[in-house]
Amino acid sequence: MYLVRTIRLIMKNQQIVLVRRPEGMASPDDFSLKTVDMPDIEEGQILVKNEYLSLDPAMRGWMNEGTTYMPGVQIGSVMRGFGAGKIVASKHDDYPEGSYITGLFGVQEYAVSDGKGTTLIDQINEPLSYHLGILGMPGMTAYFGLLEKGQPEAGQTVFVSGAAGVVGSTVGQIAKIKGCTVVGTAGSKEKCRYLIEECGFDAAINYKEEDLEASIKAACPDGVDVFYDNVGGPMLDTMLKNLARGARVVICGAISQYNKSEIYGPKNYMKIVTARGYITGIIVFDYINQYPKAVKEMSQWIAEGKLKTKEHVVDGIEHFPAALQMLFKGQNFGKLSLKI
Amino acid sequence: MYLVRTIRLIMKNQQIVLVRRPEGMASPDDFSLKTVDMPDIEEGQILVKNEYLSLDPAMRGWMNEGTTYMPGVQIGSVMRGFGAGKIVASKHDDYPEGSYITGLFGVQEYAVSDGKGTTLIDQINEPLSYHLGILGMPGMTAYFGLLEKGQPEAGQTVFVSGAAGVVGSTVGQIAKIKGCTVVGTAGSKEKCRYLIEECGFDAAINYKEEDLEASIKAACPDGVDVFYDNVGGPMLDTMLKNLARGARVVICGAISQYNKSEIYGPKNYMKIVTARGYITGIIVFDYINQYPKAVKEMSQWIAEGKLKTKEHVVDGIEHFPAALQMLFKGQNFGKLSLKI
Repeated sequence: MYLVRTIRLIMKNQQIVLVRRPEGMASPDDFSLKTVDMPDIEEGQILVKNEYLSLDPAMRGWMNEGTTYMPGVQIGSVMRGFGAGKIVASKHDDYPEGSYITGLFGVQEYAVSDGKGTTLIDQINEPLSYHLGILGMPGMTAYFGLLEKGQPEAGQTVFVSGAAGVVGSTVGQIAKIKGCTVVGTAGSKEKCRYLIEECGFDAAINYKEEDLEASIKAACPDGVDVFYDNVGGPMLDTMLKNLARGARVVICGAISQYNKSEIYGPKNYMKIVTARGYITGIIVFDYINQYPKAVKEMSQWIAEGKLKTKEHVVDGIEHFPAALQMLFKGQNFGKLSLKI
Repeated sequence: MYLVRTIRLIMKNQQIVLVRRPEGMASPDDFSLKTVDMPDIEEGQILVKNEYLSLDPAMRGWMNEGTTYMPGVQIGSVMRGFGAGKIVASKHDDYPEGSYITGLFGVQEYAVSDGKGTTLIDQINEPLSYHLGILGMPGMTAYFGLLEKGQPEAGQTVFVSGAAGVVGSTVGQIAKIKGCTVVGTAGSKEKCRYLIEECGFDAAINYKEEDLEASIKAACPDGVDVFYDNVGGPMLDTMLKNLARGARVVICGAISQYNKSEIYGPKNYMKIVTARGYITGIIVFDYINQYPKAVKEMSQWIAEGKLKTKEHVVDGIEHFPAALQMLFKGQNFGKLSLKI
């Protein structure tokens, strides 16, 4: 405690600040690295030292003025982002010093929090970084999006776009656990091999090299019962042509579109009518009260070797802008995070 | 009976035949009027004399090769279409001569049927033509699309595009019966006046003259709970910006798009995600077994003056191609049919 306080007197806090709203692709010039004094905490607050910072597709939306499910990050403010770290000082009885915790701590080394919206990590059976990925928001998005919104049944075909990402690979593996046939798309041979060999997918389509429509038809001869979409754009359009009767389309994201100033609307949207299906989406925050149950179940699956994940860790907060570009260009392979 | 048989020997049957598949807007040159011998009927068949032939937006889709819920009309075949008429000869015990009947009899004066997919009209309390409109396929589409797929609750806001059409005006009036606030779009002042004064809509927006987005916001300050879409295109996109939480979007048609070779995809489709809603559609044929119950209920509403309809009747089968263009240009006001 004394040490921490002393350190706080002499140490500074590094932050990534949003300085400009991008049009189209986010650029490193939209951010600046700022060094500020260490924050003080008041009664009811905690100080968290982030050990890992998460890079998520949702960040692109947060850089906009804000018409989505959350207001945008204000210009001059710390970039919004999930962190996993340790409580290094606490004036809040529910959050003891030394505990591990995740939350929307922002892209910075140290964060002050009142605990709202955070998740204490009871047991660390896995690497801490897993709690930003497969056991964090992306994993929860996969779990609740697939099971609550997609409602897959054993024997049905589940198709995942962006399948090599942490959300996509988790969706596919959970669908396999539930007895489904699972097909996914990814952007390289290496990623496709990973999906089949490591994640147990029945088929993986390299959308950069294969004829998407023909490959989908070959892999899903009876059509797709659940389409979990992370990509949007023309890929969504192609998928809509291949829905089975009663299909559920779960829109999770549209990473192909986040950096576009003009969004590509799915021209085949009326296929959902003839398929007698529906298009819906997943907002993971709606399930926040059910996270602990999902984390417990998924942690068990990980321990049993039924659920795997891959990580891509970049060292140093100063590399945040470059890492974000890597994410949008699909250059990472595995859950992307910064190690602080 | 004897007279009918004699007439059949000397009379001819006039048919509208599809001679070309249109690209874009259907044109009169896609059809020809053909005079053929009167058909004979065999055991198990009936001969129907159509008194009214229906013009429906779905016809544009039927002119395509067929990727929708039905195969397209073959080149050289009678154009598909609903008719309402009288059984003038019968070799089928379930279908007595002299009965009134509706079905997919094709755009022709006389049709042979085995009774499959037809509906006998028990009682004629309303004009026969109503059984092609408000008590026929369009009315059923309104009834089941709104009640089964839209699931409106009293106090909620229901928005209908293409509201002055028979489907739209019926959707709106049923929603009023169910206690909803009802707003619709139409393409003229006269149609808007009709919606408010005759159909009891709470607001009607003239999309050709008003700022659609501003008018929707003014008429639906809490957003739209059920959006029943007959129009598609940019109007659907504008609507997607105004969904209330938990909104249901029921896609019935996309009349703005049927004559386009390139469909406009809704760029705002992800609004359904943030609204925690879903997009689905209505295929009325799925409810065919429930038609009688719906007809009975709606017939009662008509008798009570709670449900009104407007008709636009064109005389003569030879005017079919011109009437179809009228439909797609929105020049009809009321359910469009041909009187034979």
